[in-house]
Amino acid sequence: MNFDIHRVNRETQKDIQNIINNKTKPPGALGQLEQLALQVALIQSSIHIEVTKPTALVFASDHGIAERGVSIASSDVTTQMVSNFLAGGAAINCFCESVDMELKVIDAGMKKKLVNEPNLINQSLGQGTSDFSLTQAMSVATAEKGIGLGASQVQALINQGCNTVALGEMGIGNTSAAAAMMCALLKLPVEQCVGRGTGIDDQQLQTKRQLIANSLELHKGSIETPLGILAAVGGFEIAQMTGGILQGAQEKIIVLIDGFIASIAALLAVRMYPEARDYLVFCHQSDELGHESVLAELDATPLLNLGMRLGEGTGAALALPLVRASCKFFNDMASFAEAGVTV
Amino acid sequence: MNFDIHRVNRETQKDIQNIINNKTKPPGALGQLEQLALQVALIQSSIHIEVTKPTALVFASDHGIAERGVSIASSDVTTQMVSNFLAGGAAINCFCESVDMELKVIDAGMKKKLVNEPNLINQSLGQGTSDFSLTQAMSVATAEKGIGLGASQVQALINQGCNTVALGEMGIGNTSAAAAMMCALLKLPVEQCVGRGTGIDDQQLQTKRQLIANSLELHKGSIETPLGILAAVGGFEIAQMTGGILQGAQEKIIVLIDGFIASIAALLAVRMYPEARDYLVFCHQSDELGHESVLAELDATPLLNLGMRLGEGTGAALALPLVRASCKFFNDMASFAEAGVTV
Repeated sequence: MNFDIHRVNRETQKDIQNIINNKTKPPGALGQLEQLALQVALIQSSIHIEVTKPTALVFASDHGIAERGVSIASSDVTTQMVSNFLAGGAAINCFCESVDMELKVIDAGMKKKLVNEPNLINQSLGQGTSDFSLTQAMSVATAEKGIGLGASQVQALINQGCNTVALGEMGIGNTSAAAAMMCALLKLPVEQCVGRGTGIDDQQLQTKRQLIANSLELHKGSIETPLGILAAVGGFEIAQMTGGILQGAQEKIIVLIDGFIASIAALLAVRMYPEARDYLVFCHQSDELGHESVLAELDATPLLNLGMRLGEGTGAALALPLVRASCKFFNDMASFAEAGVTV
Repeated sequence: MNFDIHRVNRETQKDIQNIINNKTKPPGALGQLEQLALQVALIQSSIHIEVTKPTALVFASDHGIAERGVSIASSDVTTQMVSNFLAGGAAINCFCESVDMELKVIDAGMKKKLVNEPNLINQSLGQGTSDFSLTQAMSVATAEKGIGLGASQVQALINQGCNTVALGEMGIGNTSAAAAMMCALLKLPVEQCVGRGTGIDDQQLQTKRQLIANSLELHKGSIETPLGILAAVGGFEIAQMTGGILQGAQEKIIVLIDGFIASIAALLAVRMYPEARDYLVFCHQSDELGHESVLAELDATPLLNLGMRLGEGTGAALALPLVRASCKFFNDMASFAEAGVTV
């Protein structure tokens, strides 16, 4: 579980910025797409940039904490939704097809296993985490194993020519795990981190917050490191997403970060390896409470803000056309000299 | 110049909303894409919705007011940029190609004509408007003619099977015309309407505001109607865009509205025919001062907010994949019953 991650080479930044500034438009007139083109050119260390074989990985797993009434749905729904992914009927299927992106679904540790599903990648770490209000969600060894499995999945994509990966998730109860991790990583109170997930009411929100506050108190001796936090209150899908992010950063590919859960995995990855930040493209500002603070901590302005709160990698898939458009203008737009424009 | 525009039929709205609510996701979890799917289903009056032959029309023309130092560029740049469009080198070319959208470029009244350009559609209303700080920008008859020409261009697309049109523009000086129209349409002071366009400095901004305030005073007798405002301080490209919007609304197609200038054309269209509002999809929140107030007046929340300020239809092109994604989930996403999901 050691990664060899380096920052992008900023020596070429001025040259890249010059290319962007000389395109036939007023300086800065393409806003965030200019910053995105710069980032991709730095990641790819090239003046011809492109998206190849973009793939969304959706990691599904369950959470012991879900038994405590912190969600509108039961853990059964994780498996039902994975069946839906495999049958092509979920939002992420529709969006991936719409933007021409590959989709792979991974069992990172579902409570109810699916059998006879050849397209489901089995990387199960167990049948859901333990209830973190009572004990560690998983052992440190399992957390490390999860990071390794996520990394190997991204490496397999890279070996097939993918240079852009999106990380998504499905897991009833995972806003609780992510919010608990956020409290521990940012040392913030539950009121600033714990939100409504897919739509719990005021009383459930109160329960969820109290439960997480108590859990953090229970685990206070073991949440001093990122890995300790992941093991104490994290999730199997979050572990594997973190590994995927780190492998993507090591191999210098574009890593598309979706909403709240994916951003917590990103925060964890960056706490482990700050250099990983350079490879992350934040795609969607979720409606989930806490996401804004996480993004601020990561100095990230997402490309989209469509009021979605679904996960599955949906925000990342929808942002892919913007990445492609950035590459296109960077590669093909005429300079003032080429076009004979006299501004 | 009479249009026969009807509101969408809201009788089916509940049924459409039911379809969206029964998709396998928490209610509202796809945010603005749900509202977009609803709007498209109402526009197309169908439960199978789609984007066919999407086309961006870019209307180029010049402005007499540009002689007054209200822009960073001279009118020559309008024609130079049109050459760039025709050669495929501008941002809008790159974005249209990236999102698989057709692009057509129209001379709505450039100061310097281009010859031997078979791909440039000639709908010129003259070699730039008159300087509206001295006289009417154009006659009312010319304004009406422009609306008719824009309408016929959109009708030609519809005849070829296009059901989604984006309206963009190029015209040095056109933020001055649009801002003056905004002042007159919304009865707001220049400080709330007149911004920096492509990037003028504080002193030029002061000049631009004073010039527009004086011009509105000059024309106060003739800016009591939308058409009067267009003739007094508008532009040839704005007239043609307005006609395009109205024809799209009449024929019940999706009309993608880009940034500040296009939004002023939309506001004008809606002031003429309030029913047209139902067909407009607002694509990008521009950085130009005033755009936010115009959008508020039109009760519009744009799909994108990327800090761009270029025009050309760039924001509309970038929003097209979101329209396609909305159609895709509305058509193909499984319902709870279909997927056997028990939430």
